[in-house]
This record gives sequence, structure tokens and C-alpha cells, in this order.
Amino acid sequence: MTIAATTDTDVFARRIRTIVGERGVIDQATDMAPYLVDERGYYRGSARMIVRPASTAEVSQVLRACNEMRVPVVPQGGNTSLCGGATPFEHGNEIVLSLVRLNRVRSVDPLNYAITVEAGVILADVQKAAAEHDRLFPLSLGGEGTARIGGNLSTNAGGTGVLRYGNARDLVLGIEVVLPDGTVWDGLRGLRKDNTGYDLKQLFIGAEGTLGVITATVLKLYPRPAALETAFAALSGPEAAIELLSRARKRTDDKVAAFELILRTPLEMVLRRIPGARDPLAKAYSTYALVEISSGRDDGGLRAELEVLLAEAIEDGLVKDAAVAESAQQRKDFWRLRETIPEAQKHEGASIKHDVSVPVSRTAEFIAKASRDVDSVVAGARIVAFGHVGDGNIHFNISEPAGGDTALFRARAEDITRTIHDIVARMDGSISAEHGIGRYKRDELAHYKPAIALDLMRRIKSAIDPNGIMNPGKVV
Amino acid sequence: MTIAATTDTDVFARRIRTIVGERGVIDQATDMAPYLVDERGYYRGSARMIVRPASTAEVSQVLRACNEMRVPVVPQGGNTSLCGGATPFEHGNEIVLSLVRLNRVRSVDPLNYAITVEAGVILADVQKAAAEHDRLFPLSLGGEGTARIGGNLSTNAGGTGVLRYGNARDLVLGIEVVLPDGTVWDGLRGLRKDNTGYDLKQLFIGAEGTLGVITATVLKLYPRPAALETAFAALSGPEAAIELLSRARKRTDDKVAAFELILRTPLEMVLRRIPGARDPLAKAYSTYALVEISSGRDDGGLRAELEVLLAEAIEDGLVKDAAVAESAQQRKDFWRLRETIPEAQKHEGASIKHDVSVPVSRTAEFIAKASRDVDSVVAGARIVAFGHVGDGNIHFNISEPAGGDTALFRARAEDITRTIHDIVARMDGSISAEHGIGRYKRDELAHYKPAIALDLMRRIKSAIDPNGIMNPGKVV
Repeated sequence: MTIAATTDTDVFARRIRTIVGERGVIDQATDMAPYLVDERGYYRGSARMIVRPASTAEVSQVLRACNEMRVPVVPQGGNTSLCGGATPFEHGNEIVLSLVRLNRVRSVDPLNYAITVEAGVILADVQKAAAEHDRLFPLSLGGEGTARIGGNLSTNAGGTGVLRYGNARDLVLGIEVVLPDGTVWDGLRGLRKDNTGYDLKQLFIGAEGTLGVITATVLKLYPRPAALETAFAALSGPEAAIELLSRARKRTDDKVAAFELILRTPLEMVLRRIPGARDPLAKAYSTYALVEISSGRDDGGLRAELEVLLAEAIEDGLVKDAAVAESAQQRKDFWRLRETIPEAQKHEGASIKHDVSVPVSRTAEFIAKASRDVDSVVAGARIVAFGHVGDGNIHFNISEPAGGDTALFRARAEDITRTIHDIVARMDGSISAEHGIGRYKRDELAHYKPAIALDLMRRIKSAIDPNGIMNPGKVV
Repeated sequence: MTIAATTDTDVFARRIRTIVGERGVIDQATDMAPYLVDERGYYRGSARMIVRPASTAEVSQVLRACNEMRVPVVPQGGNTSLCGGATPFEHGNEIVLSLVRLNRVRSVDPLNYAITVEAGVILADVQKAAAEHDRLFPLSLGGEGTARIGGNLSTNAGGTGVLRYGNARDLVLGIEVVLPDGTVWDGLRGLRKDNTGYDLKQLFIGAEGTLGVITATVLKLYPRPAALETAFAALSGPEAAIELLSRARKRTDDKVAAFELILRTPLEMVLRRIPGARDPLAKAYSTYALVEISSGRDDGGLRAELEVLLAEAIEDGLVKDAAVAESAQQRKDFWRLRETIPEAQKHEGASIKHDVSVPVSRTAEFIAKASRDVDSVVAGARIVAFGHVGDGNIHFNISEPAGGDTALFRARAEDITRTIHDIVARMDGSISAEHGIGRYKRDELAHYKPAIALDLMRRIKSAIDPNGIMNPGKVV
């Protein structure tokens, strides 16, 4: 299956150099290093070389060579995967195919509310290009300054805008893909409606590079919000969050741009660990929601909408207290309380992280049940629950008990994860809501995914990548 | 490949009867007839029997039998396909698998904004069940009183709500599918986020029953609009429609629920042929738009939004005149002008229909070019262009010249279609925007779809339906 003899290795290397030139190859250890380790530092891999093609045509020739010579390929964008999806294995037989040089914004069509970009464009640069035409590209996430759009599509990225605009998958009109044998499928059409056969693009989106390489895409744009209002609200409990969200969707005409849940424990970690963090409310509460609504018009009406929503919710006992951001700085401060949770948690000792989802209506039930059961595995374990509750997506992280035995906590890590994922499975939830599978959750997927779904995935994989050269050992 | 001997045929029939019982089989010619002809009356097929299972388990056993005995299966919902997708061929070797008895609303989860229904539920009944819980299921189309949700998903139905809520594909959270060999994939999850491998559901949605049978689905619901405002506006031309739509999206915070284009020729046909139809405007214009905006709140603000939008557009010369509906009746009258176009066109002689799409920004260019080129094929041919211009989807129908030679017009039908579809292809458009492929456009698809896309479709088809029993001769 793989080539081992030195002669063949040299032949392969020469062939790749002929295609991409000297600038397109990195093969010195120090220069290769950053491409071989994943974002979280869990995996340190090895590779024959880093190949950096400059065009779709070069990607095509590289894949043809790899397919013919059975050299496995690990596609990589901004290398920000949280599941090791873009990191090669330790054996060193793979190449890393970096898309960073495919970084052109090909065109913007404001009247079609569409933008065409290459896979290596950084997410923040897609947002900027859209803004220059008074449009919004709504995909937004922590790593947007580093992550690249090809990777965002390959992992079907989520983030904070999903509630209103959908996942990455929902923002794509067309894609260009190089298949494992080097043929190029040009599906770069900017159509809102096209019922001419199977929706091939949805197969490659979220496939984490196991079926081919996305080289370019046509993305949906939206009217740019002109006004934004943000509240930090204390709730009577997680179940109040669901009811408040449902009301907010109705009252604001579905203008809810973000709805993030934060429990007291993570907030306290932030207040304790992050310099300058300040509780916006006078008293302590068990549960908070960061609520943001946005509008394409700037006529002052939005603020009133948010205030009415909150006033009614206070009257009905859903909301205990709330602060509405009075300035851009205060809005930033609110968001900082949410976004620095992972950072704060690092200072609180060992932790185990879970990126799960359940139906929105069952998020409170999930949090209650999972909190109880985790406590019965490790008494005093601290529940750091927060996240995109508007999508049913909870980052249900566990920190070791304060002053506890770290080694003992670590020894129970697998039991904790099994406990949480079992609850998720019984609630028809997902063990990976937005981070994907990669290498990190592949065994977990095999454990929870129905056999028939795994079988379908394998059949599709074999049909499209018969030699199994695309990112082997990831996902399927 | 197929069974011919009478003995085998008898064995098959007995096996099916054992599974679904006497109530589940129709095999008398007169009772079978309605299942054997398509909505437009283009195709009259034949079949061994109509099989009407009452549960997913029965569908599973029927498919297992068909797969083992190599009997091809034509799945059928409300039988409203406009492309013959649910009609058997003339040879009589197939069965029609009717899903009409799988007609339960399984559950509604208002807080998760989701509903779970079986494939045979009529679209209008899905809408009703949602409304009973103060929610909206936004898929809406002419045949909604007859079409069934399984068919809507299998053809990725479009309709008038696409602009705001997306195609059927975008409204699905989960599906249950019986695969060709009878195994059941239970993908009935109501999650907003789930990144655990390939998005299998999107493969079956829009596959027109060629990969398996959708037996149930979890659908997205939305806040129910409390207010609705509708305008019938005369425009300076088709290019003004695009600009007006773009402004409307921005000004109304993306509350545009429908944006339909109507040219003067189809409006005149309606005024001439449909009893009671009346031009809402005092003078005649070349181009009209039916614009509807909706809101979850009923505070009277919506009317003002629409009026401001129109007033500014009049000032800028985009809109020449406009009427805003003053009552529910007047709204209905406006919509009737749009919805009776196909009926009116029937009275105007022979016609050829095209369901195409181009990027929204190029709709005016398409209409201009296609109108000119059609005239050069048949001088005086009347352009009946209308449709969902907000999605770039134009129903570009052609009626024979007034007082022309019908036989001559019919003789040029293929040339006209080739002319139009060639323009669509050059504009990176779609030759089937919302009606699908079925049997009607299969050759046309083979002509226009890139070879690599057809090849990918075939590879997927073989991987999932290796014996080719699912709706053979349709789509691929």
C-alpha cells in the first residue's frame, strides 16, 4: 500500500518538486515543525514533506502523484483543529498538503450576496472582504484570525453566529474540490436553488479532508448589521435560558445573533483569573446568559426591543437581574467574560473537555443530569458549563476538585467522559457538536455512531477515495 | 437482473402480501391507475402492484424482498412531481411504493422549534401541526394540499418561502431512511449542531428516491409571523427588481418573505383569462414585483417599513407605481395574479416551460438575453417569465406567437429549450432550479452536468444501491 524503498521516495519527492517548485516544498525539520503539531499540542506527527501548492492545478497534480504512488495526504489550512484533524501521524509516511498559498479573494458579488474565495484565505479576511462591500460573512469563532476558510468548511465550523445564520455548511453556495485522483470538480456556482442531482458539496463539507481537498468556495453573504445590543442577564436557572431564548426569537423577529450560557463556576474562574474581569451585576447568581440581538437598521429601536424583552422576563421570574451594554467597550467586556473561560480554566488545574449538543429543549435537563452523575464519579469535580445554548451546544468541561488529588482525577478522566457521552447518547445528542472528529474522537465515534451510519460513511469513502490516501485514520 | 418467470412473480407477490397484508396491496387496474400517471400527464406507466406499507418496519421488509428478488422500486408520496420522478416506466416490472399510510405527526417540540413527522404526512398538515403550537413550518408551494413531506424532501422542494427560510434541504434536522437492502438508518435527531462525520442526510434529501426511502423526518420550525404586508409594484425593468430586493433585505432586516417577478406578458394573460383578475395599478408597465415582508410581532411597524422602502424606490426611479394590500382579500388578489399564471398560460396555446436559475445579480441579464435569442428562433414567441427572482429562479416559459402556427412552434420546441439552457449554462446557472430531474430532465442533465459530477453521483449510487433497485432510470 505505501512506498518504503528510498528510490521510490526520491522519485516521489522529485515529482512533487517538479510540480510545485522549490518554494512549494518544506522539508527541513525546523521549518516543518509548526505544521506537525496540532493546536492543543496533543499530537506531534512526522511527514515526508510539507507541500504548499500555489494553485488548484498544482493541488490536482500533487494529488495525482500521491494517488499513483499511494502516498497518504493530510490537508491543512490554518492548523487550528481542536481534534488533531490536520496533523499527520507519527509514522512519517504522509505529506502535509498546506493550502496557505491559495489565498486569493476571487470575486465579490454584492447583489448576489456572494463571495468567491480560495481555501487558504483566513476567515477574518473573508469577513473583511465582505464588509468592504457592506455585506456580512457571519461565520465567527475564536480562531478567526488564524483559521482558514477551507478548514472551516472541511470541519463544518460553528461558532457564535450559528443561531442566526447556521453552521459553515449552511453558508456555502458552491465549492471547488480536487478529488483523490487529481480530477477537479468545479462546483463553484453561486445559486440559491439548484436541483440537478445529489448535493455533492455537502458531502465534502465536514468530511475533514477524507474525501478530497476543497480548493475554493462561493459563500453566502448577508446584510451587514448596523446596530447591535448586548445584555448580560442573570437567570433563575438553565431552564429559564431555553424559555428566554424562545421568547427572544419571537419578540425580536428572529434577530437573536448570539445566546450564550454561562454557569456561576466558570464565571467565578474568570473573575478570579483574568485581569480586569468584573462581574457586571451586584449579586451572585447560579446562571447567566449573554444575549445579543442585531439589526440591519440603526434607528434606535433595537435597544428598546431588548429592554422590553428583559423587563417582561424579570416580571415573569425568568431573569433575576440584567445589564445592557452602554458602550462598545462594555459589550467587549461582556464578551470577554465568555471568551476567556478556557483561559481561566487552565489556571484551575487539570480539566477534561466535552463539546456536546442535545435538542435545545433538553439542555437544562442535560446539565442537571450530567452534573449529578459527574459528581458521583469524582465528588467535588467542578462543572464548567458554558456555550452556545441557543444551538443546544454545551461545552461541558470538568475541572478537578479545588484542592483535590490531580492524579486521582486524571485516572477517572475516561470514566467521566463515558458518563457524559452516555447521557448525551441517551438524549439523542451529539458527542461532537462543532469541533469535529479528527483523530481525537475517532474511537469515540466508532463507539457511539450507529453501525449502519458508519457503514454508509465507509462505503462513500471507498467510492470516492478507493486507495484511501486522503487523511487516513481520521473520522472513519 | 429482473425476474420474468411467472412462478417467481407469484413468489414475490405472496411475499409482499405477507408483509403488508391485503390492505397494503393494490393490484387491480382501475385502482392502480392514479398511481401510474404523473401530475402533468406526460407519463403513463405500468407496475406489478402498488405497495402501501403502514410502518417503517414494513417498508424495510418490502425493500429487503425487492433487493433480494431484484424488483425495482418507485417510491411515491403525493405524486405531484413535475418531472415524472414518482411514475413507473412502461415495462411494468417495477412496484410503486406509496408512503401515504405513513402519515403520523410523531411529535412537536416547540422549545426546540422542531417537529417529527412521517414521510406520508401532507405538507399542509405539517404546517397546521406547527401552527397549533404557535410555530411556522415555512415550506410553502402550490401543491401543498396534496404533496407529502417525504416527496418534498426527496425533491428538495422550493416554493415561495425559500428567500427567507431556504429550500426543503435547509429545513431538515434529521431523517429516517430505509436503505435498498432494507436496513433502517435512524438519523431522527433534532440537533442544530452535530459534527460527527459525513452529513448523510443531505445525500438522501434531493436524491429523488434513487438511494433509499425517507420514512420520517425531524424538521425545523420558526416563530410564527404575526404580521404580513404585501405590495404589488411596477418597476422600471427587471434590473430594478434586483436592486429593490437588495435594498429590501437591508431595510427590513431580512424580513422579506417573498419577492416574485412578473413580466407584463404573463400579467396580461391572467387579466385576459382568469375571471375576476384585475390590474391593481392604473397604467400598464413592463415589469412587476410582488413583495411580501413578515414579522413575528404585530405592532403596526411593518406597514411603515414597506411604505418607506417603496417611497424611496419611487424617488430613485426603481419603482414606477405600487399598491400595498389594504386587506387580507386584497393580498389574496395580488397573489392570485402570480399563482394563476400557469392556468392562464394554458389558454394561450402551446407552450414550453423552463425552471431555471442564475445568480440573483444576473437575472435581468438572463431575461434580456434569453428573450432576444428565443425570438430569433421563433419570431413573436411570447415570453412568459415570472417566479422567485429573490432566489434567481425564473420560470421562463414560452407561449406560441399569438395567431401563430402551432405545429411550427412545436417543431422548434427543442431548439428553444436548447437555446435557453445554453444561456443558463454559460451563466453558471441551473437547468432545474426547484422541480428536480426525475425522468423528464435526465437526458438534459447528462448533457449539461460536468462529467466528473455525473461520475461522482454514479459512484455514490453504486455504493449505496449496488443492485440498482431504487427508482432506476431517474436522475442518474
